[in-house]
Amino acid sequence: MKKLLIQLDTDKRASTFDQVVAYDAGADNLIIHSEITKEEVEDIIYGAIFTRSPKKMKNTAVFIGGSDVEKGEKIMEAVEDVFFANFRVSVMLDSNGSNTTAAASVLKVKEEIDLAGCEVLILAGTGPVGVRAAALFAMEGASVTITSRSQEKADKKAEMIKEEYDLEKIKGVEAKTDADFIKAMKNKEVILSAGPPGINFISREMWKNEDSIKVMADINAVSPAGIEGIEPPADGDTIDGIKVFGALGIGSLKMKLHKKAVAELFKTNDLSLNAVEVYKLNEKL
Amino acid sequence: MKKLLIQLDTDKRASTFDQVVAYDAGADNLIIHSEITKEEVEDIIYGAIFTRSPKKMKNTAVFIGGSDVEKGEKIMEAVEDVFFANFRVSVMLDSNGSNTTAAASVLKVKEEIDLAGCEVLILAGTGPVGVRAAALFAMEGASVTITSRSQEKADKKAEMIKEEYDLEKIKGVEAKTDADFIKAMKNKEVILSAGPPGINFISREMWKNEDSIKVMADINAVSPAGIEGIEPPADGDTIDGIKVFGALGIGSLKMKLHKKAVAELFKTNDLSLNAVEVYKLNEKL
Amino acid sequence: MKKLLIQLDTDKRASTFDQVVAYDAGADNLIIHSEITKEEVEDIIYGAIFTRSPKKMKNTAVFIGGSDVEKGEKIMEAVEDVFFANFRVSVMLDSNGSNTTAAASVLKVKEEIDLAGCEVLILAGTGPVGVRAAALFAMEGASVTITSRSQEKADKKAEMIKEEYDLEKIKGVEAKTDADFIKAMKNKEVILSAGPPGINFISREMWKNEDSIKVMADINAVSPAGIEGIEPPADGDTIDGIKVFGALGIGSLKMKLHKKAVAELFKTNDLSLNAVEVYKLNEKL
Repeated sequence: MKKLLIQLDTDKRASTFDQVVAYDAGADNLIIHSEITKEEVEDIIYGAIFTRSPKKMKNTAVFIGGSDVEKGEKIMEAVEDVFFANFRVSVMLDSNGSNTTAAASVLKVKEEIDLAGCEVLILAGTGPVGVRAAALFAMEGASVTITSRSQEKADKKAEMIKEEYDLEKIKGVEAKTDADFIKAMKNKEVILSAGPPGINFISREMWKNEDSIKVMADINAVSPAGIEGIEPPADGDTIDGIKVFGALGIGSLKMKLHKKAVAELFKTNDLSLNAVEVYKLNEKL
Repeated sequence: MKKLLIQLDTDKRASTFDQVVAYDAGADNLIIHSEITKEEVEDIIYGAIFTRSPKKMKNTAVFIGGSDVEKGEKIMEAVEDVFFANFRVSVMLDSNGSNTTAAASVLKVKEEIDLAGCEVLILAGTGPVGVRAAALFAMEGASVTITSRSQEKADKKAEMIKEEYDLEKIKGVEAKTDADFIKAMKNKEVILSAGPPGINFISREMWKNEDSIKVMADINAVSPAGIEGIEPPADGDTIDGIKVFGALGIGSLKMKLHKKAVAELFKTNDLSLNAVEVYKLNEKL
Repeated sequence: MKKLLIQLDTDKRASTFDQVVAYDAGADNLIIHSEITKEEVEDIIYGAIFTRSPKKMKNTAVFIGGSDVEKGEKIMEAVEDVFFANFRVSVMLDSNGSNTTAAASVLKVKEEIDLAGCEVLILAGTGPVGVRAAALFAMEGASVTITSRSQEKADKKAEMIKEEYDLEKIKGVEAKTDADFIKAMKNKEVILSAGPPGINFISREMWKNEDSIKVMADINAVSPAGIEGIEPPADGDTIDGIKVFGALGIGSLKMKLHKKAVAELFKTNDLSLNAVEVYKLNEKL
């Protein structure tokens, strides 16, 4: 029986990247729905759960993608709302690669440092990758600070993460000026830059004097880097005594997680893969 | 050579249900065209008939779906208009599941009663499933009455069925009030409710006193049922001495017919599967 | 690993013809993007070049189609602009079948006559097939004249071909009236009609008195023919001592070239198949 992946994409064009990875992860055929809205989900999911017998339902799965993570989250909710009893299929959210990128970033840092009790700073930590990485770091026992241009937004997101993931030790801090960032870096051992492509937050001058820093990572592949000095291919390289990871170094693990996650979808019909579940798949790689 | 099914769907989103069933019926890949209009059919069908050699043309087929049966019928006509000589592929119409549902409904009833000379009443018999079921019942020798909210519409559809399928013994009757329905049920041995989801036509009080009734079926899966008392899973259950079939009981056979029909499309290049042809496929199940 | 063909089509509906041929040429699955614009190309091509390892990248390829050849050419440029270093996949342009049709037309003529030094006239030679055929004929050593309703356009296109393909011996001539066409035919040994469907350029009366003509071909499958007297199935038939090829006679070779070209895309990741490259594939048939 063919493994069918229903790709629900919130963008006008269903991601080519996600389609290629889906095939490489073992999907036989894709059923593509682009520009998906939550109102359209029910009918599609009926097509997923009312076509194959319960024992074979694991051969159908749903992948939610697209550049807008908030929209993707709403589609994920709408999909799960349709499921009832054992009438469900496995589903994965990875809009904008947010879950796989967050998971890979935290896993890369974890290779270099014990996260229990570790002080972590996430630049642009209120975006989709930042929020997810914050939760994963905290889950591993770290104390996490996320920066935002607004204290209010930083606080709000920190609260949201604590509630949603049932965590403590996450706080928000406003950081707009160099002085703000320097202050935020004080005593931090890990810095993750989770901002959008081409936006720099801290210069080399700013971080090289912070002796507490042991590991830095940057998910931004487009110059300038979020953290000056980290090149995209960096994969555990040492700069000024600090271990650093760039977008491509992280990206290689991200891709493995993405493929593994899609492959897992077809093993049972009851998976819901979001940040934490994708992160935990690392053990199976 | 790959078995390619060209799915022409009149809806904005090509049915996920139909796509899954197509793969399970043996299609290797689908070529999807949603929101199809009859003006666009010619070019697509040229792509079907001018790409493979005559001997291999049976590996390409066309499936017409979507929620609007009338639109689907026009697409079916447009498809067949493009065919010439042996330049054709097999084609199947099942917009809104109308052909497979009508066929399965009649087949289920036929399991319980000899249809030759049988008196059949079809509630909401002027809709796409009702019309098709009426033709199939009459083809088996039954006398069929279809109800509509308007006598004019009932008469018109009854005439249309007689002409299109070359049948007699089909008549229309107006039924709006409880009294109308009770009158229509007089002396009927079979009642099929072919109306839309969630619309009730007759209450238990209304049918339980009609001693002539031997079999009842209801294609509506959404409560309330068209015929009060028939639960969707009913599959030959007995209520008050009457054999009953609900939407899921019918649906299981419908699904088998759907799969069988798609599989048949790839056996020769000259099939046109509409209500009667799908109905007859039951012999091959 | 699955062979994935990314079909970028400039039309509203991605060509069914191209999809069927792609599967028959060995593609395992297609990733379809219809109504493609050049602004959308980058993201799609990133999905092609950043998903598979360099050694396996040949399993992903791009096919550009649609009815508008100029639009297709711009998509081809946009695709190649995204490639860098060895981060590229093989790509083929065949909008409106222009490359495969031009190649097949010239190859058919070449079966019958030595093109070196040959005098060739291309009717409606400024269209996409005409331009490509002119280049291929000239590449083989022929002297080529292309006709247009406007001398200015004919000259411009002739110059363009010479520059783009680095050729000489191509000139333009205005031909609107019968007298113009008769004059243009003087001393020509080959005439190719490359105009749109259903448009006649020269009558039998006009060509039958030209003793220099040895081979004629017509890509138009819809009556009336561009050259009166050539039936679509003609495949080297002799009329009045002249070898002739019609649209279907050419079409059979065109189809072989199309399939061969798509199959070649998956052999290495560095092919860019346009008119000349497709033409040369004939040696591998």
